Amino acid sequence: MNTTANSNILSSGDLLKNWQANRGLTRRVIEAFPEKELFEFSIAGMRPFSEMTKELLAIAGPGLDQIVNGSDQILDEERTEWNSKEALLKAWDETTELINSLWSKMEDSKFEERIKLFGQYENTVFDSITYFVENEIHHRGQGYVYLRAIGIEPPFFWEK
Amino acid sequence: MNTTANSNILSSGDLLKNWQANRGLTRRVIEAFPEKELFEFSIAGMRPFSEMTKELLAIAGPGLDQIVNGSDQILDEERTEWNSKEALLKAWDETTELINSLWSKMEDSKFEERIKLFGQYENTVFDSITYFVENEIHHRGQGYVYLRAIGIEPPFFWEK
Repeated sequence: MNTTANSNILSSGDLLKNWQANRGLTRRVIEAFPEKELFEFSIAGMRPFSEMTKELLAIAGPGLDQIVNGSDQILDEERTEWNSKEALLKAWDETTELINSLWSKMEDSKFEERIKLFGQYENTVFDSITYFVENEIHHRGQGYVYLRAIGIEPPFFWEK
Repeated sequence: MNTTANSNILSSGDLLKNWQANRGLTRRVIEAFPEKELFEFSIAGMRPFSEMTKELLAIAGPGLDQIVNGSDQILDEERTEWNSKEALLKAWDETTELINSLWSKMEDSKFEERIKLFGQYENTVFDSITYFVENEIHHRGQGYVYLRAIGIEPPFFWEK
């Protein structure tokens, strides 16, 4: 019998640590692509991995900024400066710092708030952030297939 | 400033709900494959989706049984009865029930315990279960690429 059904098992800091560990692995997947294949290779009409990376960048920083600061955000997946592998990695690293900075302002009570992100996706903050992480793992798994298909060994999945 | 740094933000029940929601989506991905492609289609020498499904089945039920009951388990990904789509879906549904049943015996304190699963992977129970879920999302993302490559529209990712 579960005698502590109303208590909780994950801290805010643990959730941040897991997200950033996942982001670290995704960064290694971006790095593993040659420049050309990052922007051009795809299977069955799906997006190249650069486009998936842009989606993840467009969600993480702006989404968390809306959550923490209440800013109005749109989902902007096409920035002209995101035009090279180097630029994507730079944006990735800037987002890493931005997430850490915004996270330090998050009260635990924030995770229960319902917020409509990007003007369209309404959910609790906890569920939105869980979606951010799961969506990243989902696309990264697709990136693994792309890497295999172009003959490159992806990083070990469990080296998160 | 985070004034509640030591409190927690996720309940055991929420974690179970998220795992089962992910498992429900994975079930729809298994269902979306034609029988032949489930067992034979692959890209770049990767495993067919049936093999990934067997890995997920071999981890979830036996892993949680070891966590809850302390049973000795090996990672057994090749059972002779897992030889058809129907058999995999049946095993999937049995695992759904098994997880719910085992979960009802989990105390919250269990999630902090360090356990060496399958005789080789030592981690806290929370991190092991997080790995179970993330590993499933990772392989399911690969299954999405397979489905696209054989001309089948996968279920919506966000309909978890």
